[in-house]
Order: sequence, then C-alpha cells, then structure tokens
Amino acid sequence: MIADIIWDSLQLVRASQPLIHNITNFVVMNNTANVLLSIGASPVMIHSIDEVEDFVGISQALVVNIGTLYSEQVAACKLAAIRAVSINVPWILDPVGAGSTPYRMAAAISLARIKPKVIRGNGSEIMNLAEQHSSGHGKGVDSLHSSSVALDAAQHLASSIGTTVAVTGEVDYVTDGCRVTAVENGHPLMKLVTGLGCSATAMIGAFLAVEADAFTAAVAGLTVLGIAGEIAAECSLGPGTLQVALLDTLYSLDEKVLKKRCKCKELSKVLS
Amino acid sequence: MIADIIWDSLQLVRASQPLIHNITNFVVMNNTANVLLSIGASPVMIHSIDEVEDFVGISQALVVNIGTLYSEQVAACKLAAIRAVSINVPWILDPVGAGSTPYRMAAAISLARIKPKVIRGNGSEIMNLAEQHSSGHGKGVDSLHSSSVALDAAQHLASSIGTTVAVTGEVDYVTDGCRVTAVENGHPLMKLVTGLGCSATAMIGAFLAVEADAFTAAVAGLTVLGIAGEIAAECSLGPGTLQVALLDTLYSLDEKVLKKRCKCKELSKVLS
Amino acid sequence: MIADIIWDSLQLVRASQPLIHNITNFVVMNNTANVLLSIGASPVMIHSIDEVEDFVGISQALVVNIGTLYSEQVAACKLAAIRAVSINVPWILDPVGAGSTPYRMAAAISLARIKPKVIRGNGSEIMNLAEQHSSGHGKGVDSLHSSSVALDAAQHLASSIGTTVAVTGEVDYVTDGCRVTAVENGHPLMKLVTGLGCSATAMIGAFLAVEADAFTAAVAGLTVLGIAGEIAAECSLGPGTLQVALLDTLYSLDEKVLKKRCKCKELSKVLS
Repeated sequence: MIADIIWDSLQLVRASQPLIHNITNFVVMNNTANVLLSIGASPVMIHSIDEVEDFVGISQALVVNIGTLYSEQVAACKLAAIRAVSINVPWILDPVGAGSTPYRMAAAISLARIKPKVIRGNGSEIMNLAEQHSSGHGKGVDSLHSSSVALDAAQHLASSIGTTVAVTGEVDYVTDGCRVTAVENGHPLMKLVTGLGCSATAMIGAFLAVEADAFTAAVAGLTVLGIAGEIAAECSLGPGTLQVALLDTLYSLDEKVLKKRCKCKELSKVLS
Repeated sequence: MIADIIWDSLQLVRASQPLIHNITNFVVMNNTANVLLSIGASPVMIHSIDEVEDFVGISQALVVNIGTLYSEQVAACKLAAIRAVSINVPWILDPVGAGSTPYRMAAAISLARIKPKVIRGNGSEIMNLAEQHSSGHGKGVDSLHSSSVALDAAQHLASSIGTTVAVTGEVDYVTDGCRVTAVENGHPLMKLVTGLGCSATAMIGAFLAVEADAFTAAVAGLTVLGIAGEIAAECSLGPGTLQVALLDTLYSLDEKVLKKRCKCKELSKVLS
Repeated sequence: MIADIIWDSLQLVRASQPLIHNITNFVVMNNTANVLLSIGASPVMIHSIDEVEDFVGISQALVVNIGTLYSEQVAACKLAAIRAVSINVPWILDPVGAGSTPYRMAAAISLARIKPKVIRGNGSEIMNLAEQHSSGHGKGVDSLHSSSVALDAAQHLASSIGTTVAVTGEVDYVTDGCRVTAVENGHPLMKLVTGLGCSATAMIGAFLAVEADAFTAAVAGLTVLGIAGEIAAECSLGPGTLQVALLDTLYSLDEKVLKKRCKCKELSKVLS
C-alpha cells in the first residue's frame, strides 16, 4: 500500500534527519526551514556562489527554487545542481513563475537541462516548461485551468527530460512519464498562505534524501503536506492560524491519521 | 459615505484578485505576501533588474519599498517605476527610513521624482522627504512627534509632487494637497509587529489596482488594515498572536464589522 | 543575585528602546525583528555597503550574523564592525555554520579579528573558530556533542581574542575566559523553530546596548530567551504555536516569573 510506504519514508526522515540544502526565494526561506524542521529534516539555506558547491557535498538533497531569482543566484543554482548530479546528490527544481517573463523562462529551462530528479510546479509552470521542451510541436497553452491538460504536459516533460514531474493544484499529479499517481489531499485555504507550493517542493526534497525512487518521494512529500494542510485548515479561522497549525500538525502527524487520510490513487497511463 | 466606498473597493479586490508586483524589503516579504493574499489580491515579489520591467507589464499595481535597499535593487525600483508610469500601472512608494542616511535619502528622493500615485510613510520619513522638496524654504524638522507638523509636511509634499501622501502614526492622515482625511483606526500593539507599515503600503497598492482615485485607495487601505489590526489586537495576548489574528481577520472581515468600526474623518483643508 | 541584574537590564531595554542595527541572514530577518520588538528594543535591518557605516553611527549596538553570507554582505559586515569598534558601539558576532565550508570559515575568522564584544554560536561553530585561533595546537574537533569540550573551546577562544563567548546547546555557557556561567533555561522544542539561535544573538545585542559588561549582557540575553522559550513550549502544540507564544511571552514577561525560573549558575574556572 502506498500509505505504508509514505509512512515508512516519513519515519526515515524523522530518524535520519537528512541535511537539505535549499537555494530558495527570499519570501519563503523562513517557512521552508520551519516546514523541514517540523518533519524532522535539517534545513540549510545557503546561496553564495562561493560555497554552494562545497555545501552540496555535505548534503543529502538539494532544493532549487527560482522565486526571487537574480543573476548571481541563477549562477549559484546552476553550480549547485551540476555538483549535485556529479556526486549523486538528488535535487529538485521548483520553476516558480516559469513563462511569466523571458528571463525566468530561460532560467527555468537551463536548470531543467541539468536533470533534476523531480520538477514540481503548478499547471501553468509545468505547461510552459513542457512547451519549451516539445521542440516545435507547438501545442498552445490554452487551458491553464484544466488539470488533464496539465497532466498531459507533465507526462511529456517527464519523458523528454527523463525525470519525475509533480504538478500541483486542486488535485496533485505525479508522473515519471509512465506511472501516474493523483494525490487528492489538501484544502482550498492553503492557497491563501504564501509559499506552500515551495514548501511542497522542499518536502519532496526531504523525501528524496531517504527514498531512492524519486516518483515515490514526490508522492510522499505531496501527500504528507496535503494531509497536514487539511487537518490544519479544519481547525483554523483563516490563513494566519492555518500556517501555525500546519507546522504543529507536521510535527505530530502519526501513523493512524496519515493512513486514514491518505488519498493517493494510481492512474493508468494516459499519455496522449 | 466613505465606509460604503471602502467596502465596495474591498469587494472589488476580492472579486478581481489583482496581481500586485512588490519590490520590497527582505524583512517583510513573507508578511506582505500573506496580507495581500488575505484580502484577496495576488502578490508577486520580484526584484531582478532582468525582469521587473516585464513583470510590471502584467501587473495591476506596483509597490516599491526601500527597507533593505542596495544598489541593484534601487536600479530595479527605478526601472519598474518608470515602466509603470509609462504604461499607466499605478505605483506606490514606501520611503522606509528616508533621512536616516544620505544614501537612503537620495534613493527616496530619486524615486519620489518618478511620480508615484501614493507615498506612504511615518511622520519622520514624510517630513524628511518634504524638506527635500521644499527647495530651500528650509523649515526645520523639529517636531517629529507632532502629527499636525507631519500633516503639514504631507500636504506640502503632495502638492509639490502632485501625488497623494499617507502619513501613518497614532492617527493616519491621507492628503492629495487639497483633501485631507484622518483615519483613527488601529491599535498601539501593532507597532510591536515588524512591517505593518509596509503591509499598509502594500494594501494601498491593492486598492490602487481597483480604485481610480488614489486618495480613496489610500484611505481604504489604511482603514481596512487599521480595523483588522484593532480586532486582532483585542483578542491577542501579545505581538505573536496579533500577527496571526491579523491575517485571519483580514480574510474574514465582513461588511457589518467594517462599517461599524470605520473611523475616517474628512478634515477641512489646513494647508499652511 | 544574577536574576536581579537580568531583570534590571530587561527593564532598561524596555525603557530606553535601544536602536539595534542588524546585518543578518535572510531566513530570520523577520523573526529577529519581532523578537527585538517584543523585548522593547528598536530593530533595524540594513545591509547595504553604501550605508551600514552611517547607520552604525546612530545605533546603540550592532548584530552581525553570517547565515546567508555573500561577498557584498561580508564586506558590509566588516565595514560596520570596524566602524562600531572605532566609535565604541558594542557589537556581537554570530558565526553561523563556521567550519562547514572554507568560505564561511574564512569570513567568520576575519570578522572575529575585528574584536566583537561577544561571539555566540553552537558547539561546533565555537570549536571550529577556537581551532583556528589556537595557532597550530591542533586539537581535533571530535566531540561535537560534548558540552564540556565546547566550553573548553569557548574559554580558549574568549582568552585568545579577548572577548566574551556564548556557546548554546542543551545547556548554554557564557565565558570571558575567566568567569563561566551556565544557563539551564530553554526547552528541546526550541530546536525545531528556525533561527532561535539567531534570536539569542540579537537579544544579547539588545542587552549590550544597555549593559556595560558584555559577559552579563550575554547571560541576560540567553536567560530571558530561555525562560520565554520554556514558558512558550509548555503551552504549545508544536513548533508553530511555540514561535507565536514566544513573542507573546517575551512581551509580557514579568519580574516574578523571570526570577522564579532563572537558572543561571556560576561555575568555577575550569580552563584546561
């Protein structure tokens, strides 16, 4: 059962406290660190071009997020990702806002080429990235709100790069081009807290540190965050209390609750 | 009634979810994004000189805050503001700490010259800026704590630049050089949460996106934040719970409460 | 009694609201500002090389933290620290991650040479710094978890630089090379909130602004944070509520509670 595997992975994170190196945006650095601490990981946020390569060498996973990118940080992301690949440290890319400006699109594309184990984005980001990797087949990005279109793009992107793609939204989808799993946990109020998508990426990073199969790590990260988010939302008055309760819930999440609430569904391959 | 106008504007923000481009300081990025999400706006925090101009083009308002300025960010602020003016995207300036160092004063002055729709600051900041724009009339900034002196400076600054100036303190004042409105909402405990002045600026930015009259947008932003802050403070144990309750209150603020608590007063013109 | 001195110092902070200039990392800027506001200080977070020297001139203490260092920020830290020493503004160094990369080690060493009044770090950081200052005596850093080893390193570092060293962990130790005080306040849950070590450094900075003896300021800062942290932890469900309750508790901490909970112990000199 997938819920058993997720629980075992969470126990591994809690027991091994993996060091997760984050090069992330300035909006969510604090939240991201706290989310990682709450599930038992050891976050480090380091982005200087003068030390990121050294730091990758002592980390169990690397998280790269381009939310507030600038030229020196893009260079730091590339240096860290290249080193990660060369020494077999798994890394995940969060292509925040891919497609919204040419600069951001170019940064996302060049990072995706460094072969992350996982790419996590919303529907628009994944469709914009997939578009660039479809080498002229020119499918338009017309249906930004159709999750089936986003899933289609995710499968193409996963296949063309050879990675796992997680596309998050009302329902989250994870695919490695062949396998597809839908994660139906989560709560609409989560959209009103800034950076929970970035938190999802960081959590997948923590699971990558303990789980060899990137597809499973992505499903685990999204499921645990989704479950904690829905529990937190159910006892919250709004986005303020939700953010606080989310950390408490991640910290105290137990086996019974996780297995009862887990809503992962394997889908048949639907690559068009 | 001003309370009706404010409520209608808040409803417009909630319905249209305007994209608000923030170039702001690193202390408050997270809070600012969450405050904007809580009132229904769509915040984006982007500051690279390589993309700010592109991003202004897809935004409904621009918020510029120099709290943790550095040379490249000042350039980004200028590029974004110039583009905003050229394509009629309203923008607001928060001249944090204007006057505390020569570098900061120079940055604030050069940004104010790009004609923001609104300038929002505390008494000292507004008086220091007004001083620089009074071209040698040389009134000293002696009475930093006198809100009537700050209002006088605000009116001069508004008139000389041709903008709306909001000066916040125990009582907030908004003026376009002719009209003056006092906003008496708020709570003393709000001063113990970092960045609520920056949140006020961002909220005015959100109202600028839906309200053509900048003066009204400024009154609306300050009133909504002040009301939410006083409700949050009344049920808080200190600055920690206040910050959390503020987001919940902004999220759930309804017509009845807003109209009952609204303490905006039109003042007669008192330009000296 | 040390508890009386600590209480008097806290009252001084609350009464004089000293301006604390922080050059700190991007993860904790918001928390640090809020912790300082909660104890009554006036935090400013400013890191541009174009104004840090000017700002030190109007501050009562300077806090330097290298958590997310990069070349320009290291320069800003050095400029600010040199100015602080030259005009007798007390400053404190938080050598975050000293020893984890060569770049970080070099930055920490060069800053420590500018003679901070206090250095605050965890056991590893202090031992790595002490190692570099022991000029080839080459004691290995083998027992990272032994607080007695860390205390030994702290005493050597304090003596060789001529400063006060605070090494925090399960038990905190403060030493100026001669005197040693152990602070046994705090709670294990505090480790799951990011940046409370950085908060400890900033709080010591606030006490440096009102207390001429740096050793006493360090003991006071650690004790007040430890007491507030244990009170907050006792009423928390996890790291989310702890962070919120910590600010509320710092804000409302009274004489009776502080004196009842204070667990500072003077140790005999044990320099090996």
